[in-house]
Amino acid sequence: MRNDVINFWSIVEKNFIIENNYVSESLFAAGNGYIGMRGNFEEGYKGPKGTGLEGTYINAFYESETIKYPETAYGFADKSQTMLNITDGKIVKLYIEDEEFDMLKGQLLDYERSLNFKEGILKRNLIWRSEKGKEVRIDIERLISFKHKHLAAINYKITPLNFDGMIKVVSCIDGNVSNLTAENDPRVGSGFTGRVLSLEEAKVCDTRGLLVQKTHNTKFAVACVMENEILTENEYTIKNNKDELSVSVCFNIRAEKDSMITLNKYIAYTTSKHMEESAMIKLAVSEAANGKETGFNKLKKEQIDFLNDFWYKTDIEIKGDDLLQQGIRFNMFHLLQSVGRDGKTNIGAKGLSGEGYEGHYFWDTEIYMLPFFLYNNPDISRKLLEYRYSILPNARERARIMSHKKGALYPWRTIDGDECSAYFPAGTAQYHINADIAFAIKRYMEATEDKDFLLNYGAEILFETARLWADLGEFIENKGNKFCINDVTGPDEYTAIVNNNCYTNLMAKENLEYAYKTAVWMKENAKEAYEELINKIGFIEDELQFWKKASDNMYIPYNEELGIYLQDDSFLYKTPWDFENTPKENYPLLLHYHPLVIYRHQVCKQADLVLAEFLLNHKFDIEQKRRDYDFYEKVTTHDSSLSTCIFSIMASEVGYHDKAYKYFMETATMDLTDSHRNTKDGIHAANMAGAGMCLVNGFAGMRVYEDTISFNPYIPKEWQEYKFKVTYRGRLIEIKVNKDGTSYRMLEGESLEIVHRGEKKIISNEELRMKN
Amino acid sequence: MRNDVINFWSIVEKNFIIENNYVSESLFAAGNGYIGMRGNFEEGYKGPKGTGLEGTYINAFYESETIKYPETAYGFADKSQTMLNITDGKIVKLYIEDEEFDMLKGQLLDYERSLNFKEGILKRNLIWRSEKGKEVRIDIERLISFKHKHLAAINYKITPLNFDGMIKVVSCIDGNVSNLTAENDPRVGSGFTGRVLSLEEAKVCDTRGLLVQKTHNTKFAVACVMENEILTENEYTIKNNKDELSVSVCFNIRAEKDSMITLNKYIAYTTSKHMEESAMIKLAVSEAANGKETGFNKLKKEQIDFLNDFWYKTDIEIKGDDLLQQGIRFNMFHLLQSVGRDGKTNIGAKGLSGEGYEGHYFWDTEIYMLPFFLYNNPDISRKLLEYRYSILPNARERARIMSHKKGALYPWRTIDGDECSAYFPAGTAQYHINADIAFAIKRYMEATEDKDFLLNYGAEILFETARLWADLGEFIENKGNKFCINDVTGPDEYTAIVNNNCYTNLMAKENLEYAYKTAVWMKENAKEAYEELINKIGFIEDELQFWKKASDNMYIPYNEELGIYLQDDSFLYKTPWDFENTPKENYPLLLHYHPLVIYRHQVCKQADLVLAEFLLNHKFDIEQKRRDYDFYEKVTTHDSSLSTCIFSIMASEVGYHDKAYKYFMETATMDLTDSHRNTKDGIHAANMAGAGMCLVNGFAGMRVYEDTISFNPYIPKEWQEYKFKVTYRGRLIEIKVNKDGTSYRMLEGESLEIVHRGEKKIISNEELRMKN
Repeated sequence: MRNDVINFWSIVEKNFIIENNYVSESLFAAGNGYIGMRGNFEEGYKGPKGTGLEGTYINAFYESETIKYPETAYGFADKSQTMLNITDGKIVKLYIEDEEFDMLKGQLLDYERSLNFKEGILKRNLIWRSEKGKEVRIDIERLISFKHKHLAAINYKITPLNFDGMIKVVSCIDGNVSNLTAENDPRVGSGFTGRVLSLEEAKVCDTRGLLVQKTHNTKFAVACVMENEILTENEYTIKNNKDELSVSVCFNIRAEKDSMITLNKYIAYTTSKHMEESAMIKLAVSEAANGKETGFNKLKKEQIDFLNDFWYKTDIEIKGDDLLQQGIRFNMFHLLQSVGRDGKTNIGAKGLSGEGYEGHYFWDTEIYMLPFFLYNNPDISRKLLEYRYSILPNARERARIMSHKKGALYPWRTIDGDECSAYFPAGTAQYHINADIAFAIKRYMEATEDKDFLLNYGAEILFETARLWADLGEFIENKGNKFCINDVTGPDEYTAIVNNNCYTNLMAKENLEYAYKTAVWMKENAKEAYEELINKIGFIEDELQFWKKASDNMYIPYNEELGIYLQDDSFLYKTPWDFENTPKENYPLLLHYHPLVIYRHQVCKQADLVLAEFLLNHKFDIEQKRRDYDFYEKVTTHDSSLSTCIFSIMASEVGYHDKAYKYFMETATMDLTDSHRNTKDGIHAANMAGAGMCLVNGFAGMRVYEDTISFNPYIPKEWQEYKFKVTYRGRLIEIKVNKDGTSYRMLEGESLEIVHRGEKKIISNEELRMKN
Repeated sequence: MRNDVINFWSIVEKNFIIENNYVSESLFAAGNGYIGMRGNFEEGYKGPKGTGLEGTYINAFYESETIKYPETAYGFADKSQTMLNITDGKIVKLYIEDEEFDMLKGQLLDYERSLNFKEGILKRNLIWRSEKGKEVRIDIERLISFKHKHLAAINYKITPLNFDGMIKVVSCIDGNVSNLTAENDPRVGSGFTGRVLSLEEAKVCDTRGLLVQKTHNTKFAVACVMENEILTENEYTIKNNKDELSVSVCFNIRAEKDSMITLNKYIAYTTSKHMEESAMIKLAVSEAANGKETGFNKLKKEQIDFLNDFWYKTDIEIKGDDLLQQGIRFNMFHLLQSVGRDGKTNIGAKGLSGEGYEGHYFWDTEIYMLPFFLYNNPDISRKLLEYRYSILPNARERARIMSHKKGALYPWRTIDGDECSAYFPAGTAQYHINADIAFAIKRYMEATEDKDFLLNYGAEILFETARLWADLGEFIENKGNKFCINDVTGPDEYTAIVNNNCYTNLMAKENLEYAYKTAVWMKENAKEAYEELINKIGFIEDELQFWKKASDNMYIPYNEELGIYLQDDSFLYKTPWDFENTPKENYPLLLHYHPLVIYRHQVCKQADLVLAEFLLNHKFDIEQKRRDYDFYEKVTTHDSSLSTCIFSIMASEVGYHDKAYKYFMETATMDLTDSHRNTKDGIHAANMAGAGMCLVNGFAGMRVYEDTISFNPYIPKEWQEYKFKVTYRGRLIEIKVNKDGTSYRMLEGESLEIVHRGEKKIISNEELRMKN
């Protein structure tokens, strides 16, 4: 996709170009956090192999297989979980007399595709001339309902422009679907070869159709039901068809020039993951029927209403750079399309827009996406944490496999809770996932004071993760009896299996400390809940003291001479990567160098220590941050899409405003420009959240820690103004920054003390203006 | 197998017990370094699943497949090489009237199986009573000719004891063979599922049969030809049979009580690896025909002659422990059976006795097996090094994949030269393989002064391995500008991807130094060969100086406080393994703990630094060795079969004689007692060599370094005397040690100065007696 028109509230494609198709399918993906459809065409795509991928997904609907290692070892993750490309319900084929509509044939006289962030609608408007010269206008709208989790709808309009004749519209559900296989790119995952879903049931009658398919190993069924309605003043007949793996409803219409024909298609998806198969089918049938009864226009209105609410609390306005304005909204909209909001699902690294990383959930959620939602839709953040609670039993089991007698070890990548990482040095070794989740709970509590969550979910996760650290680390005599954490991998995946990764140790310390404080607080303030919990998890009081001791004595690697924190014990004993002699085409390094080559050099894929200094901001002074930034920036490739946003935020903090802007640009436009060359496999959800963070945490310098919310705003010289809102402890605050200064206003809720550039201020519903 | 009879020159099994069968098949394996046959029965084995494995192998005959990683990365080994279970040519089925001979049916009235080390014959003698009461005596001898590489022969005698009647003997070649698959034990390898060899040709005529099979990917063909002759005074008829995958010659004999029937079967194997398929078939046909013409008795005599020569130079005599006497000969015999002597093959970790480690060659060759042969059959050691030279092109290519601009990186495990290790932390990361090969060349040169080898093979390997170290290491400022080698794995596989593994650095230093010295020597003494070589490999003179600088400044981790060398930079920063609370059944640890759990503890699978101090003996004083021994012994599990022998040798050196004896016992009887519980997958060839080393290098304290051969003998208190011979620089020396002292005698060659307990002595053909 080339972003042909800079529009504040949509992305627009004015030309259909085969070379752009694969990436465009990801960019124009539509979803509601449960159902996701790549931006594929209703009629299908018949371009050259490798230029597109039909994709329909349901969050957390996966198949599992035994992971086969060519050389295995004890405790390796044993079962895969791969989000499946499921039953394709969006197909609408169109025949003009005997010619099938296909944009690759005939001639496109006009074409526009757009994804609208305010309406939540994917549109395609085109005029097509068939090889035999028949011209039709086609206008298609597709929505995946934010309000109705199981429902999608397509509004398909056909207008013959220069002929009368037979038009055939075939609305179909196709079960002949399979996952992409990409063996040579570890960022995609091997997927499955061939079709995984078998057919359970196929029905078609009148304008309705049903297809039920099922996985072999996980035994998950998925039902897809369609309802069709045709609106036309012309005569038509209806025919049904049932093939081996598909059902279709075929409308034959005696079309007339300039007389518009409209097909409304309502598609419902349900799965048996949390219900009986019979109930699943019933639900799909009723959801589709309800959709039809509601009608496309009403569904569209509901979609717009939902998004109005969302944008009211979430929007970021930028004056001075239209491309960035568009880009940042594009990012926020995709985040909303990606996020599971039911407490049983989460956000995949690629949302629901592609098959990269097999639809797995990573630490990206807690460190990137969850904080994005936290300050505009904290209820979504809670749901994401509830998901983590739901997989706590799996994390406990994993801890036992990893020989930890107590505690829980969260999986590095998973869908349903079991570890699915098949390369442990950059998988299971990333123990920091535990601390990331604990940190997200702390943040969530600081922003919401949601005690119900803490007592019923949060505390148990905090205790079980703290226990894991207590069991993992050791007081090492030769390290001054400090508490050391050996043989783990930090966020930076270009360094693996090291001792005392600084990020990990700092975050583990925070985890232990917060678990300790929470326990102490609960003993005082929620005695009953505390006792219930410690009974449940067999907690003994000694552990609490151990947490404090471990936390107080955590080993943090530091080099006095350079005055920098060390990424790990051995980082300074390695030679820096030879960037000068590394050709551009050799990035990302991971696709061009053996891990051992990368591991033995000072080279970072992404922010590691610099990220820790953002998260634990108050623990480091500004000079320290600057020294560390200077040191680590030099050796960081940003081959991970999680990197530039953090460097932008920290560049803002240490006063490198040009760099902050440059990294922000890269972040905000990463997918729109396909700068990582793999947007075809799906959007980069964490980076999208990072774009918002660049602005809020970077330019506006927002930090939340314990009971303080603070800002330290500046405006990039390229801009006139930017504006955003923050939801915090039941309040809604608007912050506006321009060349003159910053103004704060409380839109909802009581007045609040904040910190502006180090000074305490009270903000209320009167605008508070601060000169720069 | 229970070693039922302690016999000095054979192992003997007196009872056939299903539970012992799988292990016995390995122990009674016969081979000649080219062909290997597990100790399977001629009639096949129909016991319960998992109690046996039919196996016939040809050294380096393998199939290759794309290695599929569930999560891959750049530079991972991409093709497997798995030694195949090939065409089974040894089958002889016997029918007494309508009853098939099967030791699991009827009754075994007498039974003995033995493998004779002096004759090189596998024997089975039994009396079997069929379910219907017919008794036969069966006496079988099987030999795999040391003299005729392609030939095996079976002498099969049947004597009816209580009946007259029809006896049917079916001699068969069976192509329905496949490899073992054992997915959960990394020490076996996943092998192949199903049959890999397809049928190319099958012929049977009169008493001859031929089967040609072929691999799919490597396109290697193997021909198996049999010639059969029946010796009987009774009437018989011959029938041929050809099934889908087998050919057979069937003798129907009108047998008479007490009248012995003899079948001689001659089996020839050839492959197309180094010849045309037509030539391969011709060779197999002529080898089998020659075998028949020579006759079984003559073949047996040749076998005995060959072994007489072998034992004359190789035998170790022990007086005072019959079990050990038997055990050590068993070990040496299996080594001979395992070793490829053609310069194109090597010794697999399991020899040719099973499918463990997929028939791969490791560093075991250079550090364990090659030195064993070096001092009795140096020509075999040369052949092993020629093999390494033959795969130098592959090692160069591998170095390029691993981003080294110059030099060669030998594969950690391979058959034909390409890296086949699918778990790089304990595979490719073991860069020390390069230094091990260079060290073996140095040892070989010291023991033989074979300049022809050095100039035509050795120097090129030395230079290319040295270049690799030069490219791999870095002068690290924060390590005092010492030459450091980061992110490698040493011999100890319970610690992986570490910085400055002491063994690696010491051995790399030696490699660089020896390459440097060799180059300097060649410039002076073999100018032409030197120039030819440097032209060939594009060598520039600066490299030479860099080798010296790197070698002189090699970083060697040492802890002053404890006075010990450190296995690597971080070894002392880890916590010791909790041996006290580790139940016995949790060993070997690798089968019960995730690698990360093992890696983060002070725990060794095997000798690492202690091995370096054996190999580079002269660089450390005795107190240093003792301190290191004390420290590392405490944390070593000996889960690797390569460990106990080294600990025995070093215990001898530092004066821990009881320990030396205990470790020697464990080493010498490892397979006979199946102490590692995986002898079923094949014998432990390196450990077998280690048993000899325990005695020669341990008890007798032999060391060879540069121009000195020295001894420091003692006799274990349990023994009266031990005696062995050493081939060294064209001489044959006999060393005898008993309670009174040590005597040396030169059996062949000129007199020689040796070092006995630190003092120089001249030995000649007069016995030199030294009091203890």
